[in-house]
Amino acid sequence: MREWEKNFRQVEPYTPGEQPDFPDMIKLNTNECPYPPTPRAAEALRELAQERDRLRLYPDFRAGALTECLAHYYGLTQEQIFVGVGSDDVLSVAFLTFFNSEKPVLFPDITYSFYDVWAELYRIPYERPALDENFRIRREDYYRENGGIVIANPNAPTSIAEGTEFIEDILKHNRQSVVIVDEAYVDFGAVSALPLLEKYENLLVVQTFSKSRAMAGMRIGYAMGHPSLIRAMNDVKYSINSYTMNASSLVCGVCAVEDDAYFKECCARIMRTRAWARDRLAELGFACLESSANFLFASHESIPAKRIFEALREKNIFVRYFAKPRIDNYLRITIGTDEQMQALVNALEEIVKG
Amino acid sequence: MREWEKNFRQVEPYTPGEQPDFPDMIKLNTNECPYPPTPRAAEALRELAQERDRLRLYPDFRAGALTECLAHYYGLTQEQIFVGVGSDDVLSVAFLTFFNSEKPVLFPDITYSFYDVWAELYRIPYERPALDENFRIRREDYYRENGGIVIANPNAPTSIAEGTEFIEDILKHNRQSVVIVDEAYVDFGAVSALPLLEKYENLLVVQTFSKSRAMAGMRIGYAMGHPSLIRAMNDVKYSINSYTMNASSLVCGVCAVEDDAYFKECCARIMRTRAWARDRLAELGFACLESSANFLFASHESIPAKRIFEALREKNIFVRYFAKPRIDNYLRITIGTDEQMQALVNALEEIVKG
Repeated sequence: MREWEKNFRQVEPYTPGEQPDFPDMIKLNTNECPYPPTPRAAEALRELAQERDRLRLYPDFRAGALTECLAHYYGLTQEQIFVGVGSDDVLSVAFLTFFNSEKPVLFPDITYSFYDVWAELYRIPYERPALDENFRIRREDYYRENGGIVIANPNAPTSIAEGTEFIEDILKHNRQSVVIVDEAYVDFGAVSALPLLEKYENLLVVQTFSKSRAMAGMRIGYAMGHPSLIRAMNDVKYSINSYTMNASSLVCGVCAVEDDAYFKECCARIMRTRAWARDRLAELGFACLESSANFLFASHESIPAKRIFEALREKNIFVRYFAKPRIDNYLRITIGTDEQMQALVNALEEIVKG
Repeated sequence: MREWEKNFRQVEPYTPGEQPDFPDMIKLNTNECPYPPTPRAAEALRELAQERDRLRLYPDFRAGALTECLAHYYGLTQEQIFVGVGSDDVLSVAFLTFFNSEKPVLFPDITYSFYDVWAELYRIPYERPALDENFRIRREDYYRENGGIVIANPNAPTSIAEGTEFIEDILKHNRQSVVIVDEAYVDFGAVSALPLLEKYENLLVVQTFSKSRAMAGMRIGYAMGHPSLIRAMNDVKYSINSYTMNASSLVCGVCAVEDDAYFKECCARIMRTRAWARDRLAELGFACLESSANFLFASHESIPAKRIFEALREKNIFVRYFAKPRIDNYLRITIGTDEQMQALVNALEEIVKG
């Protein structure tokens, strides 16, 4: 080992889902939206191309246009909105900003697998209460001293959502630390904790443009909370990189929020396809957890998940498999278009009956 | 103070240059390029608009197209290139990755004012040897035990560049820590440390698309170094945010590198304008440090810098003034177009003679 390598920060990086790029593949592995974003986003890019002189200038470091339209959309003020390069950027800044206690931060053993990566990176102590045998979060596990709480709702990869009363119970028992509710998948049938912001100044709600707003490629995430939380996050953000949102993400982001009809129709279609797919999968011997997300978490009655995962890959259909305790007999299947899901069902039929 | 606020990370954020936006203003305060980026960047945005379905997908987390074209351009391998959301993102990741020693990281007292912000944020000990009375870095100050070294070359806001032999001397005396050379302004007449990469595995060279490549609005920076340094930075990056470069920054970045003739012509024009402006400023009683950057660091023989700064603002001309010890009688003036610099000279003439 070279001398300077002794001072490298030791990390166990997060492994993103593979990004295969084959013609005719069916990509159901990273929970992207199967539909393109609003056509207005394309218009916005064309307009930006027209005024390319704008590219030479630093973008607005306050991302004012985007925070303003998000504030308007959710009935909040601009001082309650933080934006970042995807919700991963937003959550990373939140961990660094809020979790500086000696007490452990709490999040479930089975949840978004980036939480422990940030905790390790920033040397934040943490504990992971186990989900119950039905993969539900036990709220009582979060009724104790802690340095912060992170709940994904709906949870990933389980797809299960809890109600407002459940989240409020956790908030009621935690008046001393910041509680983050990660709502990456909330738009597919779950209920947002946003109305609780009025009552709980230590609540931070995080959402993203990567799923329901069909813009994973533009990297936009946001947090909503009390101005004192948002101010603290911005102070940390301005201490890392003043200008994170580039000119094109700002204009596309605004368009996606403004075209609410398109957004709602997208979410509705995905939920319809989800219900259809769930029924077909049941007919083939799969049990799916009750999903409020744009994916299903499915286990077959007799064939191991890993074998199905590999058989699907051979048919150029990509889903996500986690070789982790408790969930290694499940597949996480993103809801695609109706045609993609029909192709998936056909392929599974062959695998199951073959 | 609310209970949870006690655990907020305490920071003193970096203050970016103001981003005024008045019609007819002359903006010479944040070292942007006065010319638009290559027309090919606009074409790339139009093509992306045409294929808006790509926006729904996560971008390539390896940023392969961009690292490949940078590697080709600089005669390196892809494993030697790291890309980020502006060079601030790149430097922030480098600080977090490499500077985990108990020994202090060293950088000059007068230099890019983000270095101490990152050091504070990440709790990295640091010391700042003073520039000499001519605002030059004293290389001997860096011949001692340390946890890392950061040299901006050309330095900012002084605009002064040192030669390869100077940088190599620092490297020769530092075989135990990572030495970062921040070359944000190198394309305006300085000499890059890149050829030293073959000999020094602990050297990291950082550059940006925000100045010479006229794309501050697209947020692209990059680092070049030994594959073991780049791998370590990527491990940390993937532990913060897997997908940082959005679809549009990737395509625009590639275009900017490919259109080398445009890039070289841009730099040459800025250097010609710089020489002209320096002569005019001298005629008005200003002394400028010898600049190898796209800005001048200028002090007037009799009128305080702050007064000139304010008088220029009243005329809608924005330059940068730092109310800091040693440099509080200097103005940092970005090189604009010939017309902008003529307007600046006219305004200064009125101020100086009025």
